[in-house]
Amino acid sequence: MKHIDSFLGGIYSSLVNSLMLFEKPRKEIFKSNYQPAERPRGHNLLPAKNGEEPTMQFLLEIVEILTSYIRKTFDRSTKVLDFHHPHQLLEGMEGFNLELSDQPESLEQILVDCRDTLKYGVRTGHPRFFNQLSTGLDIVGLAGEWLTSTANTNMFTYEIAPVFVLMEQLTLKKMREIIGWPNGEGDGIFSPGGAISNMYSVMIARYKFFPEVKTKGMAAAPRLILFTSEHSHYSIKKASAALGFGTENLILLNTDERGRVIPADLEAKVIAAKQKGYVPMYVNATAGTTVYGAFDPINEIADICEKYNMWLHVDGAWGGGLLMSRKHRYKLNGVQRANSVTWNPHKMMGVPLQCSAILVRERGLLQGCNSMCAGYLFQPDKQYDVTYDTGDKAIQCGRHVDIFKFWLMWKAKGTVGFEQHIDNCLDLSAYLYNKIKNREGFEMVFNEEHTNVCFWYIPPSLRSLPDGRERRERLHKVAPKIKAMMMESGTTMVGYQPQGDKVNFFRMVISNPAATRSDIDFLIEEIERLGHDL
Amino acid sequence: MKHIDSFLGGIYSSLVNSLMLFEKPRKEIFKSNYQPAERPRGHNLLPAKNGEEPTMQFLLEIVEILTSYIRKTFDRSTKVLDFHHPHQLLEGMEGFNLELSDQPESLEQILVDCRDTLKYGVRTGHPRFFNQLSTGLDIVGLAGEWLTSTANTNMFTYEIAPVFVLMEQLTLKKMREIIGWPNGEGDGIFSPGGAISNMYSVMIARYKFFPEVKTKGMAAAPRLILFTSEHSHYSIKKASAALGFGTENLILLNTDERGRVIPADLEAKVIAAKQKGYVPMYVNATAGTTVYGAFDPINEIADICEKYNMWLHVDGAWGGGLLMSRKHRYKLNGVQRANSVTWNPHKMMGVPLQCSAILVRERGLLQGCNSMCAGYLFQPDKQYDVTYDTGDKAIQCGRHVDIFKFWLMWKAKGTVGFEQHIDNCLDLSAYLYNKIKNREGFEMVFNEEHTNVCFWYIPPSLRSLPDGRERRERLHKVAPKIKAMMMESGTTMVGYQPQGDKVNFFRMVISNPAATRSDIDFLIEEIERLGHDL
Repeated sequence: MKHIDSFLGGIYSSLVNSLMLFEKPRKEIFKSNYQPAERPRGHNLLPAKNGEEPTMQFLLEIVEILTSYIRKTFDRSTKVLDFHHPHQLLEGMEGFNLELSDQPESLEQILVDCRDTLKYGVRTGHPRFFNQLSTGLDIVGLAGEWLTSTANTNMFTYEIAPVFVLMEQLTLKKMREIIGWPNGEGDGIFSPGGAISNMYSVMIARYKFFPEVKTKGMAAAPRLILFTSEHSHYSIKKASAALGFGTENLILLNTDERGRVIPADLEAKVIAAKQKGYVPMYVNATAGTTVYGAFDPINEIADICEKYNMWLHVDGAWGGGLLMSRKHRYKLNGVQRANSVTWNPHKMMGVPLQCSAILVRERGLLQGCNSMCAGYLFQPDKQYDVTYDTGDKAIQCGRHVDIFKFWLMWKAKGTVGFEQHIDNCLDLSAYLYNKIKNREGFEMVFNEEHTNVCFWYIPPSLRSLPDGRERRERLHKVAPKIKAMMMESGTTMVGYQPQGDKVNFFRMVISNPAATRSDIDFLIEEIERLGHDL
Repeated sequence: MKHIDSFLGGIYSSLVNSLMLFEKPRKEIFKSNYQPAERPRGHNLLPAKNGEEPTMQFLLEIVEILTSYIRKTFDRSTKVLDFHHPHQLLEGMEGFNLELSDQPESLEQILVDCRDTLKYGVRTGHPRFFNQLSTGLDIVGLAGEWLTSTANTNMFTYEIAPVFVLMEQLTLKKMREIIGWPNGEGDGIFSPGGAISNMYSVMIARYKFFPEVKTKGMAAAPRLILFTSEHSHYSIKKASAALGFGTENLILLNTDERGRVIPADLEAKVIAAKQKGYVPMYVNATAGTTVYGAFDPINEIADICEKYNMWLHVDGAWGGGLLMSRKHRYKLNGVQRANSVTWNPHKMMGVPLQCSAILVRERGLLQGCNSMCAGYLFQPDKQYDVTYDTGDKAIQCGRHVDIFKFWLMWKAKGTVGFEQHIDNCLDLSAYLYNKIKNREGFEMVFNEEHTNVCFWYIPPSLRSLPDGRERRERLHKVAPKIKAMMMESGTTMVGYQPQGDKVNFFRMVISNPAATRSDIDFLIEEIERLGHDL
């Protein structure tokens, strides 16, 4: 038990004492029970005979490793990551060998592998991890995932996931109520991420207007045109390629300086498409773009969609969480006019990965679009009400249980708890925005406080350079250099990217419930420290 | 601590004693720390100040619930399920209320909710659960999932999932070696289930032959025809609908009495399609059909694919696991000639859900087909070798870490351990087949021992009836009735379905490592007991 942490030492030494009641030294249980000749499968874990004891011991050792990791994750004196290059990890780190072999390893080695996997990973729950839209580690959500893995079932039928299927239905209804659809009517499903949820929206829209495509293919439809912001998520483009529309038939819409779609540009492009004889079919309005955090004007876009009979999808993968906040939900005004909405609780709401919903206003479309009525799975002659067998609505067959952790967090926090979390995140963004907007060495990409704060850090050596090609080229290299140093020192992580004609800038997003103002301060000071001499 | 089990009583009472070291009675920690006014988010779990202690305590209580569930799952005296109808669960069961509310619940209630969620669910790891292709609960795999949830990261970049990205690459290479592609060259990705893996195969095939569809849509291609067995998985049909081919352009192939594609039928249909001016593009050969467990003759199909320049996909979602067995892998002879292979370790190999791979022989196609080069995620100017950022190959953006549990199980079992597991499963199938093939009251759907054993139980009242409409109609109702009684008594679970003109029959599949001959005996006796008086 070399890896016991001081904090839990009390718990675990008691635990070990009680394991002694089993009257076998653990070394023996973990090492000697492996008898290659008879049991090449190795180890006496369940379902092996007398497997209870080693199983419980093994799982408790795993839990020791995990709880130790969790405590350190929330401790600011721990690094966010211990960076190594791919070739270093591939060559093997002191006893950590990624290669798979023919023969089993001992459970002792498995425990070491688990520790090392965590050691060389990235602590996405660390208070100073700001790198992605999904950050943080909610303890109740985590418990929910542990239970989900233990239940190890599949969402396709009520038969094998009765409780989870009902939880999904109730939670989707609640989400639809929050969107503002009357009585929460409509449909929906949890999917493996926002990209797939967005793909669903395009499929359903096509089915609504051209149901014959399901059987006859795209040849049965005229040339169909999709519209989305030039700042929108690349999954809309992926969907247009995958589903047979072609990326050239996805028209990108111009945005204002703040990254919001300009409705007049949409209307002009719709008219232009119609003049060519094409059929404008689908518009995606983004609620919270990936880089700027922009909210497209849904009401004005909805007016145009109604006028030209187009499907309106709102991609609220990132910004959908704002619907939980009475203070901030106005950013999505008009969302109830959407035909479908993507909303990822695993982003701003802090639910563990993955948890994404596609919500549809009209009931029956999901089913109509995707059902194939496989007799071996969706038997009509079961003893219970088979309308609860919702699997045939999905493009998946087996479907991971993504609902439970979300449902459990909702129980534990209440709607008000999610609201407070969203409000906190936006307060911190405002704090950051106000902190740096006039700070020497910082330049904002746009001026408006919001979910995302985008900025350049200008090292002293560039501050006196006039705007022009040289300054731009040098500035473009600043964020990647600072990011690389951050990762190598392991102190914090934040994303950067170029956008359009704007050279690399930092994009700061806050969804981490562990982050505080002091962490924001730390990030800014760290950027200054690392970037000062560039 | 009402729910302590006798076995773990020793451990947990010691645990509770050591928690007392924290000098706060647990009731106080769990109940009184909730102060609605200041902390509507509820509870003092991390990242709350002084949150370590309640966090550790809460997680250990969760682990107590889960380990107790695990032990009972492997105990044959425990029921497989405690069946309730949807309306019963929706109405609420003694303190278990599925509705979400605005205000938070206490952590005590959260623990109760977790217990109840498991109580009203289905024990898919129970030795007598045979209902799906995915059964069993591997302890090392489970530990891997717990760690995965704790790491809570995303597969799109090396930057935030360095270890997992490398594990995925090494494991996919190993799988390609086992398929038999030279040096394990090629490509692949883990996807959210076999249906999506199959969808990938169709997309990639289309990209290989008609890359312009990515940008111009299906209009840029001639009428493309796909072929698959009439017994194949419905996901091929779902893919043909979703991707814009149309289900009418998916031609179903006739099968022999054993459910295997008849190669001559494929060739005839290819020629017929060509004569109409269509382009035969893609053939799916199934290695292990869902109902019969049939293996299509891959070599003969590959000959036809080569002759007519078609993509050959092998859907080994179910049967792919046989590749691990030197004794049984001959069933997939010719698989190395496939252009792509679906292989779900979460089925016969017993990896927890979900874990499905799509493997592709030609490198670069996955990337070419799906990449959209989103600058905010896949920056080319990072400090490490960005060829390890594999996310742009996927149709997903965020992607759940499905690799770790599989990698960890492979470490713990070795290749030989998987082989032994597969051999055991097939031995048990053979045992069942031989047990009932001449048993009174049983009739085989086909005669050949294999992964799947399909049979009718004929109650005494039907045994003397001549074959004909009445017998068929009555027999059709037997399996559903027995299944309903099984579920209500909770003793075991097995699937049934009709197939073609065959009325409802039982489909027995064995992937559960906990199952033994005595469980097979139990199943048969239970069917006889429940069905005797029908």
